[in-house]
Amino acid sequence: MARNIKLTLEYDGTDYVGWQVQPGLPTVHGVLVEGLKKITGEEVALIASGRTDAGVHALGQVANFKTTSSISVDGIRDGLNSVLPKDVAITEALEVPPGFDSRRDARSKTYAYRVLRREHRSPVLGRFSWHVDLPLDTDVMSEGAALLVGRKDFSSFRAADSDAAHSVREIFSFDVGKEGDMIELRVRGTGFLRHMVRAMVAALVELGSGRITLADLARIVEARSRAAAPWTAPARGLFLMEVEY
Amino acid sequence: MARNIKLTLEYDGTDYVGWQVQPGLPTVHGVLVEGLKKITGEEVALIASGRTDAGVHALGQVANFKTTSSISVDGIRDGLNSVLPKDVAITEALEVPPGFDSRRDARSKTYAYRVLRREHRSPVLGRFSWHVDLPLDTDVMSEGAALLVGRKDFSSFRAADSDAAHSVREIFSFDVGKEGDMIELRVRGTGFLRHMVRAMVAALVELGSGRITLADLARIVEARSRAAAPWTAPARGLFLMEVEY
Repeated sequence: MARNIKLTLEYDGTDYVGWQVQPGLPTVHGVLVEGLKKITGEEVALIASGRTDAGVHALGQVANFKTTSSISVDGIRDGLNSVLPKDVAITEALEVPPGFDSRRDARSKTYAYRVLRREHRSPVLGRFSWHVDLPLDTDVMSEGAALLVGRKDFSSFRAADSDAAHSVREIFSFDVGKEGDMIELRVRGTGFLRHMVRAMVAALVELGSGRITLADLARIVEARSRAAAPWTAPARGLFLMEVEY
Repeated sequence: MARNIKLTLEYDGTDYVGWQVQPGLPTVHGVLVEGLKKITGEEVALIASGRTDAGVHALGQVANFKTTSSISVDGIRDGLNSVLPKDVAITEALEVPPGFDSRRDARSKTYAYRVLRREHRSPVLGRFSWHVDLPLDTDVMSEGAALLVGRKDFSSFRAADSDAAHSVREIFSFDVGKEGDMIELRVRGTGFLRHMVRAMVAALVELGSGRITLADLARIVEARSRAAAPWTAPARGLFLMEVEY
């Protein structure tokens, strides 16, 4: 009888071309499937809540797979952690009902994006943030983030190559926080189009630096066209924080 | 007339064999001298406040060099930042009196060491911390840190290959802080023997985990022998925070 195992994952995405399998290139999916083969002897089908793009990090990615192996869930977690490269780790392994599917059953996701607002780039903080050397008004960025909350057509913030069938998504909350010179934008929603979080963050940075106004941002949303907001924040500041089921 | 330039540096030491020049191996000193050659055309003699070991990071390392170039200090800072690899950056460049020597004139240094106290390793935080999976009592670690404050012979915490003439140093303060599961140990003193901070941190982790007692730690200090405290915390959790002049 196959068991269904749910994994919660943390990874530093810097050295990966993303989640998805790409032959010959390092992917998070690839190192996990290889690790699972070492500890279960099986070639498992591993489903994630969604793909993360090249360079994007995760503190709470979720994936599941079926196995006939009898290893305990703690054994799977610890065994994987001992064979995985140091930039990927399992924070939790749980047995879940046979029908659980980490992609289909995801109700919402939370992403965090970190912007380092200072004059000079930081070697220590730069791996996990976007360095912006312009002054940023976080109050107006908060007002802008509030404009993006709700059920909307997010065509203005979808990648040209996004293969989603439609562009309506619902954002439940979008908060802008600040600690010292690190600005953290945290957004929770039903799901996100390809590059959507990074495109929204980039538009909010345009707003915070004064290059566009709140009225411009409202027009950008209304335009439902990527040409209206052609900016994308770099992957390295983005973290998939949590997937809610 | 040669000017004397003081640089304040930040680096991610992960991919370096340390500060000191080692032919054919990547050193922080090496990339800086190479960068300075690109922007000044000169082969400068660059003196740091002290060497950092392989894998050790810095938020406030200080170095100085003489130059006959007429580039402004802001030009040196920005020019270097544009040619340096992304894991090294200049946070400040200043012209200082001709006699200033960043090593000889250093009055004290502050180091911080980060210990991540949790069950599973963290790909995102692991690059800049030591993962310890045992419970740690930070109150007793604070008491232990207090035992190390003062002017003492630190022979129990010096590397076997330390080439310092004597082992008496003065520690002004040694504090243990905690935020979530990240423990930060911060120590300020006149100077430190090779591996001294990492050896003291490792002894405090032994103490915090209950494997040694405060009385044992006091005996270790008294022993004035590295054999009494044979532990060394990994380089990746250590940051040179500031050099005071």
